[in-house]
Amino acid sequence: MPQTLATFPNPHPTRDYHIEHQAQEFTSLCPMTGQPDFATIMIRYVPGPTCIELKSLKLYLQSFRSKGIFYEDVTNEILNDLVAACSPKWMVVESRWSVRGGIQSVITAEHGDRKQ
Amino acid sequence: MPQTLATFPNPHPTRDYHIEHQAQEFTSLCPMTGQPDFATIMIRYVPGPTCIELKSLKLYLQSFRSKGIFYEDVTNEILNDLVAACSPKWMVVESRWSVRGGIQSVITAEHGDRKQ
Amino acid sequence: MPQTLATFPNPHPTRDYHIEHQAQEFTSLCPMTGQPDFATIMIRYVPGPTCIELKSLKLYLQSFRSKGIFYEDVTNEILNDLVAACSPKWMVVESRWSVRGGIQSVITAEHGDRKQ
Amino acid sequence: MPQTLATFPNPHPTRDYHIEHQAQEFTSLCPMTGQPDFATIMIRYVPGPTCIELKSLKLYLQSFRSKGIFYEDVTNEILNDLVAACSPKWMVVESRWSVRGGIQSVITAEHGDRKQ
Amino acid sequence: MPQTLATFPNPHPTRDYHIEHQAQEFTSLCPMTGQPDFATIMIRYVPGPTCIELKSLKLYLQSFRSKGIFYEDVTNEILNDLVAACSPKWMVVESRWSVRGGIQSVITAEHGDRKQ
Amino acid sequence: MPQTLATFPNPHPTRDYHIEHQAQEFTSLCPMTGQPDFATIMIRYVPGPTCIELKSLKLYLQSFRSKGIFYEDVTNEILNDLVAACSPKWMVVESRWSVRGGIQSVITAEHGDRKQ
Amino acid sequence: MPQTLATFPNPHPTRDYHIEHQAQEFTSLCPMTGQPDFATIMIRYVPGPTCIELKSLKLYLQSFRSKGIFYEDVTNEILNDLVAACSPKWMVVESRWSVRGGIQSVITAEHGDRKQ
Amino acid sequence: MPQTLATFPNPHPTRDYHIEHQAQEFTSLCPMTGQPDFATIMIRYVPGPTCIELKSLKLYLQSFRSKGIFYEDVTNEILNDLVAACSPKWMVVESRWSVRGGIQSVITAEHGDRKQ
Amino acid sequence: MPQTLATFPNPHPTRDYHIEHQAQEFTSLCPMTGQPDFATIMIRYVPGPTCIELKSLKLYLQSFRSKGIFYEDVTNEILNDLVAACSPKWMVVESRWSVRGGIQSVITAEHGDRKQ
Amino acid sequence: MPQTLATFPNPHPTRDYHIEHQAQEFTSLCPMTGQPDFATIMIRYVPGPTCIELKSLKLYLQSFRSKGIFYEDVTNEILNDLVAACSPKWMVVESRWSVRGGIQSVITAEHGDRKQ
Repeated sequence: MPQTLATFPNPHPTRDYHIEHQAQEFTSLCPMTGQPDFATIMIRYVPGPTCIELKSLKLYLQSFRSKGIFYEDVTNEILNDLVAACSPKWMVVESRWSVRGGIQSVITAEHGDRKQ
Repeated sequence: MPQTLATFPNPHPTRDYHIEHQAQEFTSLCPMTGQPDFATIMIRYVPGPTCIELKSLKLYLQSFRSKGIFYEDVTNEILNDLVAACSPKWMVVESRWSVRGGIQSVITAEHGDRKQ
Repeated sequence: MPQTLATFPNPHPTRDYHIEHQAQEFTSLCPMTGQPDFATIMIRYVPGPTCIELKSLKLYLQSFRSKGIFYEDVTNEILNDLVAACSPKWMVVESRWSVRGGIQSVITAEHGDRKQ
Repeated sequence: MPQTLATFPNPHPTRDYHIEHQAQEFTSLCPMTGQPDFATIMIRYVPGPTCIELKSLKLYLQSFRSKGIFYEDVTNEILNDLVAACSPKWMVVESRWSVRGGIQSVITAEHGDRKQ
Repeated sequence: MPQTLATFPNPHPTRDYHIEHQAQEFTSLCPMTGQPDFATIMIRYVPGPTCIELKSLKLYLQSFRSKGIFYEDVTNEILNDLVAACSPKWMVVESRWSVRGGIQSVITAEHGDRKQ
Repeated sequence: MPQTLATFPNPHPTRDYHIEHQAQEFTSLCPMTGQPDFATIMIRYVPGPTCIELKSLKLYLQSFRSKGIFYEDVTNEILNDLVAACSPKWMVVESRWSVRGGIQSVITAEHGDRKQ
Repeated sequence: MPQTLATFPNPHPTRDYHIEHQAQEFTSLCPMTGQPDFATIMIRYVPGPTCIELKSLKLYLQSFRSKGIFYEDVTNEILNDLVAACSPKWMVVESRWSVRGGIQSVITAEHGDRKQ
Repeated sequence: MPQTLATFPNPHPTRDYHIEHQAQEFTSLCPMTGQPDFATIMIRYVPGPTCIELKSLKLYLQSFRSKGIFYEDVTNEILNDLVAACSPKWMVVESRWSVRGGIQSVITAEHGDRKQ
Repeated sequence: MPQTLATFPNPHPTRDYHIEHQAQEFTSLCPMTGQPDFATIMIRYVPGPTCIELKSLKLYLQSFRSKGIFYEDVTNEILNDLVAACSPKWMVVESRWSVRGGIQSVITAEHGDRKQ
Repeated sequence: MPQTLATFPNPHPTRDYHIEHQAQEFTSLCPMTGQPDFATIMIRYVPGPTCIELKSLKLYLQSFRSKGIFYEDVTNEILNDLVAACSPKWMVVESRWSVRGGIQSVITAEHGDRKQ
């Protein structure tokens, strides 16, 4: 993880509530061709002891800009990194990619049992 | 709670029904930078003995205008204040924030078990 | 009920099916200020022995035009009047109101257990 | 049924799958006033031994053009005729009518238990 | 299957996640009239041991361009070919066709129990 | 003209103003195949001595329901009939037809010089 | 004019600028049938010596609620009343009416020469 | 021109009016890669002595299905063929292509001076 | 002007080009009631010797947050301040306000002759 | 210009026609903060002796990915480079940027007199 994900203590730990962040400006590189890929990344979770700090999330997502990585790996790697950083009770990460060859792809990975 | 939330007796207390208010003109301040934040606040509940009076809700939401407060706290604090004011059978509060750093955030907190 | 709600026998009483009417031109008066309110009224039901006749429904909804009445009462009163008129197996009434003070309100009341 | 509904053998009878047809150009006559009514007819089903042939469905729906018939009867009659013609495992028919007197109506009738 | 579907090993086999591909440029021929048909093909699955390689999927879908085939067969054949190629834990294929004779058709076929 | 177009005196003859009527429920028959055609008819004009009465316009447009007539003729014939009925200072008629064979057609005919 | 239209001095009289008000909650009565009509009223003007005060405009438009009046007269009467009240350099009034008998109508009347 | 474009005499030759056809199902091949291209073709013209017959237009556009041809040539060739076939007073052809490499292209070619 | 508007030299002074900034988070106070108003502010101009610096524009617009000011004055005052700060060849400012009393208002003021 | 822009001879040089390319995946860096910026770049031109080759345009636009450059410079530089490469009769370049600090910006630069 080239960029540290900062967290802060969950200010309302006794209630299960949802936090969603939608980042529309994600870009990485195709590991086969080196061509840029573009996606919207949606993160939704029920916080455990800590929450993801928003500015460090922005910088973390920017760290993929020059990285060659597949769609499936982007999605699972972001989920793994965020789970490791904040130990959520439940989390889902969805990546929605620009059209390539007339095909639009969406990858969705989930951690824990869905609450609500 | 700087602004009192007025209520009126639930005119149909024998039936469980839903009341939803969507306020598109919410604004508060970021406690770190002092910069204004903007959100749409959605409140949905099954009334108990009393209902929230609409004009006092408007003034209550306006009372955040000069307050430095985080997204998570806005959402949970509004939920806590409204629950304390009207003892609903069920209530959800959702805040949907303007884009910051290319990221749009949504926080959702719930009180009681969802009916229907 | 200033306007009689006409009904006709359910032509297909052996099958549970849904009928939905959406009336976009509802208007009543605020009982506090006398100012006009505007709403869309959605009625959905599984008919019992009779169905609501459409023209009499239109005239019934128009009868609120000069009436001072709150949002919650409009919704529950329409539900009560329609249930009394046609004894449905299930019915829901939803009123969706124009923006007032930057807030849009929706009231939803239900009679009987939802089928399907 | 003035127009015969043709069918063809279900080419994949061992799998339960869904077929949906949406016809946006349905028109019939009001039996009270003789005035034309317009609707979108949505048919969705899990085929049994046979499927509805598309061209005969188009002609069948056109056969209502000069027929005086109520909304509820259109919906249930189409459902009955299609069920009789192809014996589906499950079928739903929905008719969505043009605005009349400021009110838009939708009628939905179902045959069998919903699969999915 | 005139075109081989390439696969690659599932990079995250210990987690059940979803992959969706939406191809908006599908075209085949009507087997009755020889006229071209157009559709959007949506494929969504939980990968098993392997994932479908995107470029070979594009070429596979292009292989229908000069083929006379019915809507129901396109949908079930794509599902069968993809299941045979990658042994997914669950898969759904949906084809959404252009309007013909004022009617729009959608066919949906599923393999395995939906994980959600 | 099988249906008489009624008019009423222009109540504001000293000012040039625009009247637009958009009829979304127009249907006629194809003179070649007998199949029904569907269109939205838009009429916009600057009234001269008289205005078109709305109910008679509705009945006039309905008179095409069983008539075999081409797109170009519908548009020009409506324009000719309306011009003959009310002598407008300027008038445009536009017909926007449902998709046939994957092609959507729009025909637009104008009478007089466009004001503004 | 049953309701006085208040004005205030144009605060920037040396510059020609545009003011637009769009009122989505207009309702009057059909003088033939007594049935309610609904419209959106759009007013756009270049102010002369005075501007229309917003609250008095709202009350003025509400004064049509129990008035039987035709579409063309509503539009021209509002234009005449507003021109008399504030002597604008240019003004246009547009009324956009709800669907009646499958037809939507729009009436547009203008005073003075359009600036820009 | 592999497919003959049929025409019929302009039924209203004394009036200049517009005919527009929008074909959403155009496909050809890239002459470099052999890969399929997809476009919407819009044709708008003021007819001269003859009009383009709609079914022959459909077949003419389908004749590009197996042809390798560039965007610019498709647009100009269709314009040239249609002008040769029907001698319009004015004609414009616009092709709007699917996204390729993250770029969407539109080519527009015109014959004669625009009327109105 | 409580907040200084910073500028930077026009990097392409020999070409007339357009710069547009759309600020969706503008808020001020009603000078009559003290209630908050909300607007989108659109600024479009052809730069002269200097351009408006974006961050100082954001802070400048925020300086209206606690200011009691009418719609017309907001629009003209922003135009005056920006013209004074950067001497554009042409500039337009448009303010689009939230609904108040069922009426949405838009104020548009322009400086200089529109290019292009 | 780090990336050469390839061209090909205009295949229809005797007719003035329009070519438009819309690139939705443009990204560069802010020269002040180093943060990534995102834009849609629209290019529209009337070709002179040559046309811009599409793949080289894609690579040319990608060459800005690691470049620190202001909005105004991106727009004018792309226009200058494209004009130098293909000598169009007329060209416009528009860049539409993602929201920054609640403000969305659009820059538009033009070369030559607009042919329409």
